[in-house]
Amino acid sequence: MLSPSVSLKRGGGRGGRGGHCKSVKVCDCRHENAGVQEKLLKSGPDFNDFLNELHKEFSIQSHETFVVSTTDRAVLDYDTFAALEDGSTLYLFRREDQALPTAREETITFQPHYDTLIQSGTYEYYASNDKNSFPYALAELIDNSLSATAKNPGVRTIEIRMLFDETLGKPAVIVLDNGCGMTSKQLNNWAVYRLSKFLRDDSKSASKDEKYVRPDHVPRSLNSDISYFGVGGKQAIFYIGNSVRMITKPVGSPDVHEMVMSKADFEEKERNNEDIYKGTIKNRKPGDSSHVKKNGESFLRDLIAEESGKESFTAVVMTGVLPDHITFLKDDFSVWTRELTHIYHYYIHGVNGNDLRRSSTNSDQSSKIDIQVTLREKPNKLPRVLNLREVEDDMQTLYINATADTFEFHVSSAVGSGRVEGLIRYHPFLYDRETYPEEPDTMLAPVDDESDDNESGDLQQARGKRPVFECFWNGRLIPYTTIPEFEWCALPKGNSKLPAECYSRFSGVLFTNDTYKVSTNKLTFMDLELKLKSSESIFTRVVNGQRQRVNIKSEFNKWLQNCHDKLDKQTKFLRFKEIITRPDV
Amino acid sequence: MLSPSVSLKRGGGRGGRGGHCKSVKVCDCRHENAGVQEKLLKSGPDFNDFLNELHKEFSIQSHETFVVSTTDRAVLDYDTFAALEDGSTLYLFRREDQALPTAREETITFQPHYDTLIQSGTYEYYASNDKNSFPYALAELIDNSLSATAKNPGVRTIEIRMLFDETLGKPAVIVLDNGCGMTSKQLNNWAVYRLSKFLRDDSKSASKDEKYVRPDHVPRSLNSDISYFGVGGKQAIFYIGNSVRMITKPVGSPDVHEMVMSKADFEEKERNNEDIYKGTIKNRKPGDSSHVKKNGESFLRDLIAEESGKESFTAVVMTGVLPDHITFLKDDFSVWTRELTHIYHYYIHGVNGNDLRRSSTNSDQSSKIDIQVTLREKPNKLPRVLNLREVEDDMQTLYINATADTFEFHVSSAVGSGRVEGLIRYHPFLYDRETYPEEPDTMLAPVDDESDDNESGDLQQARGKRPVFECFWNGRLIPYTTIPEFEWCALPKGNSKLPAECYSRFSGVLFTNDTYKVSTNKLTFMDLELKLKSSESIFTRVVNGQRQRVNIKSEFNKWLQNCHDKLDKQTKFLRFKEIITRPDV
Ligand SMILES: Nc1ncnc2c1ncn2[C@@H]1O[C@H](COP(=O)(O)OP(=O)(O)OP(=O)(O)O)[C@@H](O)[C@H]1O
Ligand SMILES: Nc1ncnc2c1ncn2[C@@H]1O[C@H](COP(=O)(O)OP(=O)(O)OP(=O)(O)O)[C@@H](O)[C@H]1O
Ligand SMILES: [Mg+2]
Ligand SMILES: [Mg+2]
Repeated sequence: MLSPSVSLKRGGGRGGRGGHCKSVKVCDCRHENAGVQEKLLKSGPDFNDFLNELHKEFSIQSHETFVVSTTDRAVLDYDTFAALEDGSTLYLFRREDQALPTAREETITFQPHYDTLIQSGTYEYYASNDKNSFPYALAELIDNSLSATAKNPGVRTIEIRMLFDETLGKPAVIVLDNGCGMTSKQLNNWAVYRLSKFLRDDSKSASKDEKYVRPDHVPRSLNSDISYFGVGGKQAIFYIGNSVRMITKPVGSPDVHEMVMSKADFEEKERNNEDIYKGTIKNRKPGDSSHVKKNGESFLRDLIAEESGKESFTAVVMTGVLPDHITFLKDDFSVWTRELTHIYHYYIHGVNGNDLRRSSTNSDQSSKIDIQVTLREKPNKLPRVLNLREVEDDMQTLYINATADTFEFHVSSAVGSGRVEGLIRYHPFLYDRETYPEEPDTMLAPVDDESDDNESGDLQQARGKRPVFECFWNGRLIPYTTIPEFEWCALPKGNSKLPAECYSRFSGVLFTNDTYKVSTNKLTFMDLELKLKSSESIFTRVVNGQRQRVNIKSEFNKWLQNCHDKLDKQTKFLRFKEIITRPDV
Repeated sequence: MLSPSVSLKRGGGRGGRGGHCKSVKVCDCRHENAGVQEKLLKSGPDFNDFLNELHKEFSIQSHETFVVSTTDRAVLDYDTFAALEDGSTLYLFRREDQALPTAREETITFQPHYDTLIQSGTYEYYASNDKNSFPYALAELIDNSLSATAKNPGVRTIEIRMLFDETLGKPAVIVLDNGCGMTSKQLNNWAVYRLSKFLRDDSKSASKDEKYVRPDHVPRSLNSDISYFGVGGKQAIFYIGNSVRMITKPVGSPDVHEMVMSKADFEEKERNNEDIYKGTIKNRKPGDSSHVKKNGESFLRDLIAEESGKESFTAVVMTGVLPDHITFLKDDFSVWTRELTHIYHYYIHGVNGNDLRRSSTNSDQSSKIDIQVTLREKPNKLPRVLNLREVEDDMQTLYINATADTFEFHVSSAVGSGRVEGLIRYHPFLYDRETYPEEPDTMLAPVDDESDDNESGDLQQARGKRPVFECFWNGRLIPYTTIPEFEWCALPKGNSKLPAECYSRFSGVLFTNDTYKVSTNKLTFMDLELKLKSSESIFTRVVNGQRQRVNIKSEFNKWLQNCHDKLDKQTKFLRFKEIITRPDV
């Protein structure tokens, strides 16, 4: 068997006449019906040296015609020989187009290109529905922080810091959490693209295997178990910027582990013919910023100074942030913070969501989750600071606070552990208007003639053509999947006792666990609608937490009838009575 | 600097007492304010051997307390020492929780997991819109064959062979083309995930760089240049099956190159701690199948027997095909062949598409593209054979043949090389019905009460709520992106001289080049709609190939008015006249 034709540049060549000595493997294929003889040849750096050596080693007669080529049949000459890598395999033929006497094998390597990491996010979080998809990339990092803080004894804090004050260094986006942190082995595993929790062996000692255990069911699947594919963090980071510094301290360890991964590093390693996927992890004392460059990265020294006294943490420090992102983050602060609140609504506010009409907040939550956003711009401008709990115009908050009655249900699949909790909320007509909430974007946007969804009249139709259900996966919104309706809650085709408008006065939410699969960018469910609409799915109404063996369709219609009768307050114009003149106006 | 803690299992250990000798690096961190002393220790395989050696080398006093731990601070004992990999780095501390005197660096590797290749397609071609996405995976391989045959002097042949006759071996899907083939270097590059044509150096000799050159503009961007990301083939292959054998012969070479990549191979290399991304390419004579197993793969020997006499070719042989796919391919033959025809309609039929009303086909095409499908099931059943050119119910064929008039336009962007050719087709009302074509699936499907789009009345509304434009990228359909309409061809908001129905009697197509980006799975455009609807995009009408400086909106409305006046043949009920009794019925 032949050895690598795609081979090491750093061969142990012994120098000769200015250039380097070459060592190549030559397979003598001249004799079609004989075996192939292989020899290792060392010669001077010149093609002539090589030819001399070749004649000698393979006893080539002076009158004999022959050809030397690479395994790709490129015929060797002075130039190509000079460019040949040390350790290459060459063929000796009688003629250029001579067939191989026997099959030959060459060894190759095909390590994925580093764009696997660098480019993974670029096409994953594309703009769609006219929306900027930055929040969905950022969400991947919040997902990781939610997983990492799942077992925190106290408050779970996730800080998103946007540092665009150039006096503190280059623009940076930092996601910082007080979760369990990573050991250096876990940090190494973090960097391995596609190494998911299902494949990993993260245990501290090699002897005991800590295999992944699926969490028990919790209401609305708020289990904080949102890591899945082993790609999210890397995709998000290189979508946001071109360099990341991971800084982490695992619980119970006195050391901080630090690792840098950047596009520039990869490019340099490629230029220098170094191993692309070799890196270093720095282990150091908390607070030790002696390795940070003196100028240009003062925010990093500040961040490291905060480390002392922290039991454990992880900081994802992204730099090389794309200017377009910075513009969006600055100019549309309320848009992206609202979208993030939408995604994590039930993690932030608990299973019942943000009900502003209740006197107290969900104080019963076992552990509180703080997602804190800070954005610094100019040195003399106050930073913008927002706890996502304060956001009151995300869609779920709007739905919840426009709810007059709810209809709960449960979906289970005949096979497997699929379970979905569902909720329908009635938004009644009150006096002169529908209370079905509008998207804040639509409310604020100037009336746009080109938009298709804004056809006149639609706004009066409560939900209009919009889908009924938003869908949450392990408690987190999957933003691009919605389910228009189910057969049992759709406007009946024939006569309906109820006015048709009632069927557009409700919104809905579905909470699934990870039995239902999502795409790697967590933007869409794979086949949720298909599965739910299959005959395998059984719908049951839930009242006070109890599933009821009833016909969901008639139960729903009864409920809707009741909502309409009791909650809709329609001012009806009956007939003309008189003209009143109001002298006080 | 410390050397790898995550290190080679195959160390050059010299055996001792039954086990292996261990060689580890120890950093003496006992003295917090002194430097760190590093030593390479070799000891017997037992922890006691190691401790003895340690005492000696670091002059540890007998009364001194100390702790040896890994870089992750796992304290070493008999068991963990036994499990330690040769070449690991260890720390010597006074106490377990002692801080590091100075920062230490450890080398790590973080090569992407092989699931990067194996799993890449799984979540990429997910079922959506109730459609099976198998055709879109297969399309990636046809894309590659279209690129490879682009410069063929004669007919371009792409064969898709579905071999589900178990008497010929395990089920296999083969995509075979008579394109340029690959050199062994190109085959090696094929295997490198994310190595796109923009990054590659595919030239035969190392001296000349063959950089990628963007093709010149051709009508409807049918440039066959459909490779883009360096992922498509691998994604498709491992979505379809779990093993692939690439067999290829480049133009001008007497050798065939062959390479196998499979999930089982990766798993075995992982188990054996071998280099995951090392493989072999076999170079052999055409027709030489001496390496094929005697039983179970007779289809492979047949395929190899076909090689003789072929100038160049590439065969992608996939096995381990998922049973679900096989069922779909057998049971829905007409569905997936129709969808493939839809995707490649203009490559198959030429720029004007499949106009069945013309007497001759596009004989002017410079090179003909044959996409031939064969499906073999039972040994005694005739194979199904279909040239996609024969398919007459793909959507584009239906649109084209229901067209009474067309409106051509062109979109250019102020900056960059963005160019889009557009076409609108009028499908008139004839006597008693709309001629706007229906999706064959919808036509055949039984009336489905749960479907949302099938609301009564809709079918009578020609296009109904469906979007106007299907979108082609470099001539190939991007199936999940449609554009509902443009402002200038939408039903005017105010009074319109034309009946509203006219605005739902046309369909449209857009042909873009790769200035407009698509997602890595080629299922969606990134931001086509956003870009086209921005103020940068300039629309011009095209008449007889000439762009006209006119107001597109008024031109379009004039055209539509004309279509309505001349082409719609509406039977109008005017008033009651008399009752006729037909005695002949
Ligand atoms: N903030 C964090 N704290 C602790 N560990 C983290 C943190 N972020 C990432 N990790 C670790 O790194 C791993 C890789 O993260 P990454 O987001 O790249 O993939 P993933 O979360 O496993 O899967 P997904 O593709 O679904 O995001 C995680 O599984 C987790 O073990
Ligand atoms: N049938 C074929 N004939 C010749 N070369 C091929 C063939 N199929 C693939 N290749 C080569 O292998 C490369 C990798 O193919 P692959 O489909 O994985 O990625 P790509 O086509 O480069 O990009 P994309 O992700 O857009 O498909 C191609 O660029 C092409 O050079
Ligand atoms: Mg993640
Ligand atoms: Mg491709």
